[in-house]
Amino acid sequence: MSSDKPRILITNDDGYHSEGIEALEAAMRQVGDVYVVAPASEMSGASHSLTLSRPLRIRQIDERHWTVDGTPTDCVTLAINQILLPDLKPDICVSGINHGANLGDDASYSGTVAGALEATILGVPGVAFSLVANRSHDFTESAIVAKQVVAKALAEGLPEFTLLNVNVPKGVPKGLRITKQGFKSARPVISEHIDPRGKPYYWIGEVRDGFRAEGGTDFEAIEEGFISVTPMRADLTNYAVLESLKSWER
Amino acid sequence: MSSDKPRILITNDDGYHSEGIEALEAAMRQVGDVYVVAPASEMSGASHSLTLSRPLRIRQIDERHWTVDGTPTDCVTLAINQILLPDLKPDICVSGINHGANLGDDASYSGTVAGALEATILGVPGVAFSLVANRSHDFTESAIVAKQVVAKALAEGLPEFTLLNVNVPKGVPKGLRITKQGFKSARPVISEHIDPRGKPYYWIGEVRDGFRAEGGTDFEAIEEGFISVTPMRADLTNYAVLESLKSWER
Repeated sequence: MSSDKPRILITNDDGYHSEGIEALEAAMRQVGDVYVVAPASEMSGASHSLTLSRPLRIRQIDERHWTVDGTPTDCVTLAINQILLPDLKPDICVSGINHGANLGDDASYSGTVAGALEATILGVPGVAFSLVANRSHDFTESAIVAKQVVAKALAEGLPEFTLLNVNVPKGVPKGLRITKQGFKSARPVISEHIDPRGKPYYWIGEVRDGFRAEGGTDFEAIEEGFISVTPMRADLTNYAVLESLKSWER
Repeated sequence: MSSDKPRILITNDDGYHSEGIEALEAAMRQVGDVYVVAPASEMSGASHSLTLSRPLRIRQIDERHWTVDGTPTDCVTLAINQILLPDLKPDICVSGINHGANLGDDASYSGTVAGALEATILGVPGVAFSLVANRSHDFTESAIVAKQVVAKALAEGLPEFTLLNVNVPKGVPKGLRITKQGFKSARPVISEHIDPRGKPYYWIGEVRDGFRAEGGTDFEAIEEGFISVTPMRADLTNYAVLESLKSWER
């Protein structure tokens, strides 16, 4: 089972049976030895959540495929700390391909990004891929991008504790830009409905368009037809204001 | 129902019926008009997850208290975009008091931090409080700290899109330090068990101690007996490596 090829752990948040993860796996097989550990069902919006209050089940499909009844973060921590022990520590963790963008603040809600983020916390480089499309399910270009980016990340290495959040535009990309995370300017839309028993329920809607115009962001790159690659890490500190708040110390 | 007092939205991730949120509410009543919108059940480890795949129920307890059958992020987005509309937009959102630390990378898994983070994305300043204790449920000192910090944040304002992640040490704090997020050096512990039908299940364990020694971090402040206040924002960009990755552009 061992080889000289790099070991690639794949996960996602759309679930084991999604088209995006199939496209990603096919692309990654051209780069290395692939191990898939993915949520048994859809986990969109799961963010970096970790299941602590209940046990998890691991289902082995075959020598290279497992599902977990949990989040992408659960999948990655179980893959690295349990399933692939002792000899199969991955060289990289690749998450996606998500159906839909993970741009701006949305990265923070994303299970796709969180899967790669969890890997970096556990000392494994991570890359997350998302296709910026609402209707199209054509992962052809994103799969090509995934192959190129992961091969480059394996060859050159990534900065410590860093993952790449990669968003691929519709159509053929014009090129690739290194970007910073932008900010949405839109608000969520809450819709109220009445159930058959006359009681109200609420559904949180997604707003995919609307962002603050700012140079160098992921939104800008995608708007202009480029692949957006944002280096990220699991550090929420707002360094820009650290000094100004020092007056609070006592 | 309206008054000149500041409006304070309270949420948490330990759930509506936890001791920490009761202590926080009592403290906040001394500062302003309090509205509580909290998860109906425990949501520890929920991170910034948003419930998109199913509807949510809002249960109104009385004029000032609601529960939601979702995550802290769901609670805050429903509070600001639905429950408190049109006239009761909060001046600040306060989350906690969490029973247990939210230090280092753990901030990224935390529902407590995420509640305050969601508020900042929606244009409301946020503060998250956590008591660094595994066994003690004495929220006395944390409640005093919460009252002081929130009063100061309301009086002086917080930097744009910024929340404060406040961790309070055991006992009487020696003072308050403005810190950056530290990094754990420990790994999760996965325990394997066998169910009554002979099938294995897995439980992700928490490791609370062990962190990389580095000056100016949240871990260091707590270790030395100080309150740790880390300014955070919903931006995962690793700015330190943006330039070095520019060579990837094409």
